[in-house]
Amino acid sequence: MADIKKVILAYSGGLDTSIIIPWLKENYNNCEVVAVSADVGQESELEGLEEKAIKTGASKLYIEDLKEEFVNDYVFPTIKAGAVYENKYLLGTSFARPIIGKRLVEIAKAEGADAICHGCTGKGNDQVRFELAIKAFAPTMPIIAPWRTWDLKSRDDEIEYAEAHNIPLKITRETNYSKDKNLWHLSHEGLDLEDPANEPMYNKEGFLEMGVSPEQAPDKPTYVTIHFEKGIPTAVDGVEMDGVTLIQTLNKIGGENGVGLADIVENRLVGMKSRGVYETPGGTILYHAHEVLETICLDKETQHYKQQVALKFADIVYNGQWYTPLREALSAFVDSTQETCTGDVKLKLYKGNIINAGVTSPYTLYSEEFASFGEDDVYNQADSAGFINLFGLPIKVKAMLDEGRVK
Amino acid sequence: MADIKKVILAYSGGLDTSIIIPWLKENYNNCEVVAVSADVGQESELEGLEEKAIKTGASKLYIEDLKEEFVNDYVFPTIKAGAVYENKYLLGTSFARPIIGKRLVEIAKAEGADAICHGCTGKGNDQVRFELAIKAFAPTMPIIAPWRTWDLKSRDDEIEYAEAHNIPLKITRETNYSKDKNLWHLSHEGLDLEDPANEPMYNKEGFLEMGVSPEQAPDKPTYVTIHFEKGIPTAVDGVEMDGVTLIQTLNKIGGENGVGLADIVENRLVGMKSRGVYETPGGTILYHAHEVLETICLDKETQHYKQQVALKFADIVYNGQWYTPLREALSAFVDSTQETCTGDVKLKLYKGNIINAGVTSPYTLYSEEFASFGEDDVYNQADSAGFINLFGLPIKVKAMLDEGRVK
Amino acid sequence: MADIKKVILAYSGGLDTSIIIPWLKENYNNCEVVAVSADVGQESELEGLEEKAIKTGASKLYIEDLKEEFVNDYVFPTIKAGAVYENKYLLGTSFARPIIGKRLVEIAKAEGADAICHGCTGKGNDQVRFELAIKAFAPTMPIIAPWRTWDLKSRDDEIEYAEAHNIPLKITRETNYSKDKNLWHLSHEGLDLEDPANEPMYNKEGFLEMGVSPEQAPDKPTYVTIHFEKGIPTAVDGVEMDGVTLIQTLNKIGGENGVGLADIVENRLVGMKSRGVYETPGGTILYHAHEVLETICLDKETQHYKQQVALKFADIVYNGQWYTPLREALSAFVDSTQETCTGDVKLKLYKGNIINAGVTSPYTLYSEEFASFGEDDVYNQADSAGFINLFGLPIKVKAMLDEGRVK
Amino acid sequence: MADIKKVILAYSGGLDTSIIIPWLKENYNNCEVVAVSADVGQESELEGLEEKAIKTGASKLYIEDLKEEFVNDYVFPTIKAGAVYENKYLLGTSFARPIIGKRLVEIAKAEGADAICHGCTGKGNDQVRFELAIKAFAPTMPIIAPWRTWDLKSRDDEIEYAEAHNIPLKITRETNYSKDKNLWHLSHEGLDLEDPANEPMYNKEGFLEMGVSPEQAPDKPTYVTIHFEKGIPTAVDGVEMDGVTLIQTLNKIGGENGVGLADIVENRLVGMKSRGVYETPGGTILYHAHEVLETICLDKETQHYKQQVALKFADIVYNGQWYTPLREALSAFVDSTQETCTGDVKLKLYKGNIINAGVTSPYTLYSEEFASFGEDDVYNQADSAGFINLFGLPIKVKAMLDEGRVK
Repeated sequence: MADIKKVILAYSGGLDTSIIIPWLKENYNNCEVVAVSADVGQESELEGLEEKAIKTGASKLYIEDLKEEFVNDYVFPTIKAGAVYENKYLLGTSFARPIIGKRLVEIAKAEGADAICHGCTGKGNDQVRFELAIKAFAPTMPIIAPWRTWDLKSRDDEIEYAEAHNIPLKITRETNYSKDKNLWHLSHEGLDLEDPANEPMYNKEGFLEMGVSPEQAPDKPTYVTIHFEKGIPTAVDGVEMDGVTLIQTLNKIGGENGVGLADIVENRLVGMKSRGVYETPGGTILYHAHEVLETICLDKETQHYKQQVALKFADIVYNGQWYTPLREALSAFVDSTQETCTGDVKLKLYKGNIINAGVTSPYTLYSEEFASFGEDDVYNQADSAGFINLFGLPIKVKAMLDEGRVK
Repeated sequence: MADIKKVILAYSGGLDTSIIIPWLKENYNNCEVVAVSADVGQESELEGLEEKAIKTGASKLYIEDLKEEFVNDYVFPTIKAGAVYENKYLLGTSFARPIIGKRLVEIAKAEGADAICHGCTGKGNDQVRFELAIKAFAPTMPIIAPWRTWDLKSRDDEIEYAEAHNIPLKITRETNYSKDKNLWHLSHEGLDLEDPANEPMYNKEGFLEMGVSPEQAPDKPTYVTIHFEKGIPTAVDGVEMDGVTLIQTLNKIGGENGVGLADIVENRLVGMKSRGVYETPGGTILYHAHEVLETICLDKETQHYKQQVALKFADIVYNGQWYTPLREALSAFVDSTQETCTGDVKLKLYKGNIINAGVTSPYTLYSEEFASFGEDDVYNQADSAGFINLFGLPIKVKAMLDEGRVK
Repeated sequence: MADIKKVILAYSGGLDTSIIIPWLKENYNNCEVVAVSADVGQESELEGLEEKAIKTGASKLYIEDLKEEFVNDYVFPTIKAGAVYENKYLLGTSFARPIIGKRLVEIAKAEGADAICHGCTGKGNDQVRFELAIKAFAPTMPIIAPWRTWDLKSRDDEIEYAEAHNIPLKITRETNYSKDKNLWHLSHEGLDLEDPANEPMYNKEGFLEMGVSPEQAPDKPTYVTIHFEKGIPTAVDGVEMDGVTLIQTLNKIGGENGVGLADIVENRLVGMKSRGVYETPGGTILYHAHEVLETICLDKETQHYKQQVALKFADIVYNGQWYTPLREALSAFVDSTQETCTGDVKLKLYKGNIINAGVTSPYTLYSEEFASFGEDDVYNQADSAGFINLFGLPIKVKAMLDEGRVK
Repeated sequence: MADIKKVILAYSGGLDTSIIIPWLKENYNNCEVVAVSADVGQESELEGLEEKAIKTGASKLYIEDLKEEFVNDYVFPTIKAGAVYENKYLLGTSFARPIIGKRLVEIAKAEGADAICHGCTGKGNDQVRFELAIKAFAPTMPIIAPWRTWDLKSRDDEIEYAEAHNIPLKITRETNYSKDKNLWHLSHEGLDLEDPANEPMYNKEGFLEMGVSPEQAPDKPTYVTIHFEKGIPTAVDGVEMDGVTLIQTLNKIGGENGVGLADIVENRLVGMKSRGVYETPGGTILYHAHEVLETICLDKETQHYKQQVALKFADIVYNGQWYTPLREALSAFVDSTQETCTGDVKLKLYKGNIINAGVTSPYTLYSEEFASFGEDDVYNQADSAGFINLFGLPIKVKAMLDEGRVK
């Protein structure tokens, strides 16, 4: 501890990270604190952030725009994998942590810092995700996680500490959900949501931020067509756009139509269950569209095996194991499957529903001719008899042996 | 062939099975044809069916009410498994075939029949499902599948054959989708749906039968609460009911609210892709509710592993391998997991959406106290540091070794 | 800490647990220490153990014979599962910990103890296995793990502590491998084995204890026949025997013939790799025999899926998660598959080799008639053409579409 | 049939393919038959083969040396995957078929042939493997499989046919096993082996061809060291060599030491079980060595997941699905994992045993320092307590809730 002279702090300007600055200086010999704000699309006011950080005691503030890298190197590989945690959660917070952790290390090395500090609670997943990323790039770098060690045990404790240290905050006491926002999603935890018996009050003013509830959505449907190249979305309604713009575009369309709400009790990595409500309007559309495209572009064996890979991929992303040989190997698998995932998916958005409105691909494996009722020269119906006889042979043999006829 | 004197025919009274009766008699020395109609809730008019069968040449008609057995022994075990084929299809046709196949064998044995006949096309899954069930209970019973052998190659050919044999049919030429209906679902295939580029015309009069489209659904939400005992739904809105009634009840509520439509390009067992639209209003609600309940009743390891088991279970059901040691072993796994899946799930149905409105269970593993932000005496935040250090040790060691520091 | 008046100690009489007794009394207000020695077949001298425990400061010694329960409730279910950790390790230490942990809790409750103590190192798996078992039956029971907290950092430190506390030990400094023995196996770790580049000195006097090396084994083979009932071994060479005797019998035969040595670098649960040599003579024979029997008693689908289940089962056992819903559910799966695993397996043991010498079962699914070259009336070779055409349809369709012929 | 003027025949010069030549000419309008012998290391006498083929009626004989391609593009990718079918079979025949099938198509296209013919039985896997390969490269090419259609039902029928057509054969009636040999292995089927109750007579003169039985092997061990680069074996005992030479070298060493015998009842793809004895001396050594190397070069998560991938990879290779998107995607996964699988594995071969004699790698993840007993600064034993508390939290919470204490 005595050796720590300069600390890199993952900084948001919120309550937690604001009080950490004086706390670090108090507890680490008045060390220098370099604040780093990563922009992954959370759309918080970055104006005034530098002033605030410095006023609170930081020596410097880095503002890092990671949006493009976030989308291309983390979000899109995960969409391609079709990874969904526990069948519902689209990993919005999960894959934002590794990129930030990596950037913290880069800055720590450039700054010659002695430690990295984050403001995550000791009960959550994010501490794991940050620290695994840090370990991957700076395995022996000391990590400071004040929530696991200090005496502040609640939001109220924090506010008192802030007031005692003259940190000007506009925060009111416990009137709002705990939230995490980025380009991909917004999560809500706490308060009434802590009891899974409670229905979320989606229609209440001020709850939803990225869109509206299905009930509040317009009575008219909206159509949207997404183009994919090798599993990556590249255009909306015929307009090519970069990944960041594409997600923003779909967030707007999806949000307006009440799409992408999820209410989940999930299993945290650290051993307990927690309940959260997620808004992922654009992401929900993208996952849906990508899956539809795969139904015509992937053969059955690949499609089925990829479902299993997706389960593992989701666990790995959720657990913060992004920078691991297994994640890389799974991505190699996924990328191979996406070679032919090119095409257009048209969707109808209506009051929370995403309804398929047609899919096409130059690589489609669907053939109307083969599937339909009548005759064709690719498929000979008489082949079925042989197929069934062999496919069912184990059943037949077992039944015959059970009957004692053969042996 | 010469030995076949009595054939059991899976009979629906529709075009296919109607012409099969004279065809069998023509091709198998005027054999006796015993028709069997299994009632799995398809709600077709059973009135007049006996007369029709006999007029067409059958010697007898069995009408078998299998609804209760269907729900308890096939549907509920599949819900408990959470089995969904290719992430969308709730297996409505798939698990109805084995029970019918089994009953056909029972009747064949009671009747002393020499063969069993079904009217499935040679391009579909149902022929496999029927025949695997037959092989399981009568491994050496000859099976006749006219579609794979006769010269009729289309619906039009069939109608001509019917007319030539004086079979009175009210069937018009190719104006309707190919459908399969039972208590659980209704499927639509063919016509414009054969091109996945086409959007299904849900709002068109006469398309949907079990309910309405989201757009046609009422503007007011409907709440419904489902009670489960060990993974089996036993009550709706506090009213206990048998399985058949329960599904009918939920079909009505779900259908009215536009719930449970799926538009899928699926991979058939016999090697090609096909496209279908499914209505499964009650089933969709039940799957959703059961999954929500599991999020609070199952521990993480069980929940995650069960996701993999569900993939396999779905394949097996889809492929008609119901009567196999593997299906039984998987059911043993599933039943073990369901010991504590008891509780109530409240859902809000609104224009196609199923929205969680609260879940409770006497066996819940969710603890508000553990999950929330503050302190408790079960979870010590300091433990996280140790957890992360060990969980991340492989990453750290690899990074250190990569850096050449250690070794 | 102040409240701890009586501690249950998992006691072996070895160096570690001997010094823990005075250490506990020193550090926990002279608390009462109740020693518990579980007999899982380690064949250590139990004579004099009580005197030794009491002389070292324990108030009492329980000697618990758990051999029969160990074999029937832990070993046999794991054999039935075919669970092997990392393709080599037969889990000898892993499944011995849960049963001991459970017994410690039972005694702690009977004794009204305030804590349970074990002597496992903080770098190993056993601490996890013990503590998970304790948590399963006494979730809030304090657990004391001196190795994680005291200042003794090596075997030498321990010996000094022992000498300082007048604990009479016949232990020499670091001249022997770290070993764990029970009815099922004996493990060796440490010293020259710590470098995986070193070949184990199997032929060296005093290394192997349960048998000899292949080179030292007799030049004549030994035949042995094992009978299984529903996956459980019940007789050797026609002689029925209880599980304990059966394993002892096979240990002797196997050991004499140089069977069952494994040299492994394994991944510990706690994040690092370790290297060990294992002797599991009887166990290796049993796993081999059981697997051979399954090749004729299980159908292909079950056999293949069970391979995956075995991987998970092994992880769970290795990780000490015996008392979990997932382990129970997997056992339910396994038990269902074993219904027909009854039969005889004859093996030839020769200088380390286990060579199949014939297998029979009343439930065999192997049919010489079906498999052989010529004709039969169960299998029609013409069926293969149909089978291949449908099985290969996705390949054909893809190739055709790739050629641009169809579409 | 009338259109078939030129047929490519997979030709070995054995009984089956010799009589197929006149049979084709008889049944396909005296079509031209182009014989193709693929050399995958079967070491059959190629001398005189051309003369024989032409004397029997072929117009031409291609002799294709595929050994190098076989090893590099089929064998090594499968070793890297660690794919073993049903835990025993090293896929020797399986992965030789696709390469031959592909070459047949290439020749068929060059020759402008109308069909491809093979001599596989209708009860085996090889017909599937050949035909899937053909479909992959020539999806609409007619395939002729005489065994599935002609009247010859046994070896005796064949010999009579040969004699009737003046085909000079040195074949005796049914005195030998059915064999398949290539560079990688030799399989034995039939005769006494058809009853799994019979012990194979390994010590009998003339049974084993690639080596000796353990009993016949020398009394002195042989050491061998294999070097791998990214999972591919490149040197033996320090001598770099191409893949073909390397396998030949290991076949010799392994065969002499009685290594690599497997006696298996396996599940064929076409639905029945069959029994075979396999000699794979070099292959068994390579699989063993590669697996040992992976234990120090792969991290745990990758190693465990790769075990599952290996199961699927084995099925795919066994089933002849080499040229599929899934096989390619799995290979992409595998190749990614092999980036660091470089190092040396020393083995001691002794009378059938393969005994680890040391492994090293510049990329080893094993650290003696971390694994051993004492203290180090990478691993803090106190971390274990936190790890266990969180890892065991679900168990604790469940137990507490079960106890009714919390809720």
